[in-house]
Amino acid sequence: MRNLKVMTAYRGTNYHGFQKQENAVGVQNIIEEKLGYLTGAPVKVNGCSRTDTGVHANEYCFSFETEHKIPCGNIVRGMNSLLPDDISILSCEEAAVDFHARYSCKAKEYVYLILNRPSKDPFMADLALHYPYALDTELMERSAQDFVGTHDFTSFCGTANRKEDSVRTIEYFRIEKNENLVKLIVKGDGFLYNMVRVMVGTLIFINEGKLAPDSIPDILSAKDRDLAGKTIQAHGLYLNRVFY
Amino acid sequence: MRNLKVMTAYRGTNYHGFQKQENAVGVQNIIEEKLGYLTGAPVKVNGCSRTDTGVHANEYCFSFETEHKIPCGNIVRGMNSLLPDDISILSCEEAAVDFHARYSCKAKEYVYLILNRPSKDPFMADLALHYPYALDTELMERSAQDFVGTHDFTSFCGTANRKEDSVRTIEYFRIEKNENLVKLIVKGDGFLYNMVRVMVGTLIFINEGKLAPDSIPDILSAKDRDLAGKTIQAHGLYLNRVFY
Repeated sequence: MRNLKVMTAYRGTNYHGFQKQENAVGVQNIIEEKLGYLTGAPVKVNGCSRTDTGVHANEYCFSFETEHKIPCGNIVRGMNSLLPDDISILSCEEAAVDFHARYSCKAKEYVYLILNRPSKDPFMADLALHYPYALDTELMERSAQDFVGTHDFTSFCGTANRKEDSVRTIEYFRIEKNENLVKLIVKGDGFLYNMVRVMVGTLIFINEGKLAPDSIPDILSAKDRDLAGKTIQAHGLYLNRVFY
Repeated sequence: MRNLKVMTAYRGTNYHGFQKQENAVGVQNIIEEKLGYLTGAPVKVNGCSRTDTGVHANEYCFSFETEHKIPCGNIVRGMNSLLPDDISILSCEEAAVDFHARYSCKAKEYVYLILNRPSKDPFMADLALHYPYALDTELMERSAQDFVGTHDFTSFCGTANRKEDSVRTIEYFRIEKNENLVKLIVKGDGFLYNMVRVMVGTLIFINEGKLAPDSIPDILSAKDRDLAGKTIQAHGLYLNRVFY
């Protein structure tokens, strides 16, 4: 039995996240269907993480087992000719038997894109948050440094998965500005449900004076979701890199 | 009566070009509807050019007359809140009585975008031509210089409007390459139906050895559409700037 590691990129606009759904279409539904067609047998894919509806991926990893002898290069070419235009296979390689896209993942980098100008960009409507007001990215980047390190992120987690261990380690949180495009870049060993979106929403609240610039340590200690900012829209969020 | 000059940008994917249609939706249909709502009276818009289905605009100019006293800034803000996400109003200003977006236009610049890499980009499916084969952009740029100057472009015109005068002046034709993204940039005093798409298609034929690198002068002289390359896909084309 071969175990294959595949990198993919997708525009999440038309999908209910990566994971397979019963009553909606996840990216996984499409990928399993096309892989099954290509290998002639049902395929079960293991994704590196769940992503929310509308979230994009510049690099997303999944693994799957197959007995078929099809070369990796043919999987890339075959899948890219079968898949719709908003899903792309970047690479495919043989992996060790115990490799698992989710459990073997050491870290992930997310990017949140904000278009910061008065008028909308008709080409980025579903690809970046349109924020027409002043944005103090230096203030936000300073505050964001309080996320870095190992913390219990209960306050920055959506209510859906409160049960699991909520301690995560953030390696860096940077903000880059290129003309009107603001990029928030965060890398960590793992992220709770909605965690990046709540962190970005909290920095927006700090920008708007709804929270103090030094409020993040207190919000972390309180372990109370109600103290953080709002969950920012999904369509500006990208899983940007996965590390193994 | 006021005469207003408006700059707009739109993603053409969901529209049958700019011009108003009876049985399909042009960008103009949407803009006239929203302007009518804003000014309380039917509005007739004059666009700077027709564009094909799927063609985009980074800058497109239209003009319209109104008796309403609404300030220009309110038109920009009001329209942007009424318009769908794929159409944006960039600016609005008072124009002279005899200004007409089409007849006053002195020149236009078009951009054609090619994504030149093996794998698709799920974020650019409708925004650039995906061309996975080798592209000799230096060869293409040298050949394209034969378009520059004043010529009869009958050979580079779609069959739909053969009747009109086919002499146009091309000011420049440049090709820029930024990693995998190739940008063909052409400015002229006017363009015939499909002209940019046939010029780009001809350069692709030259790249592929289907036409000789020095064949353009002969094709121009022959005034025969059949000698030029194919009409390249619309979804890589952008009206990039309009000059008055």
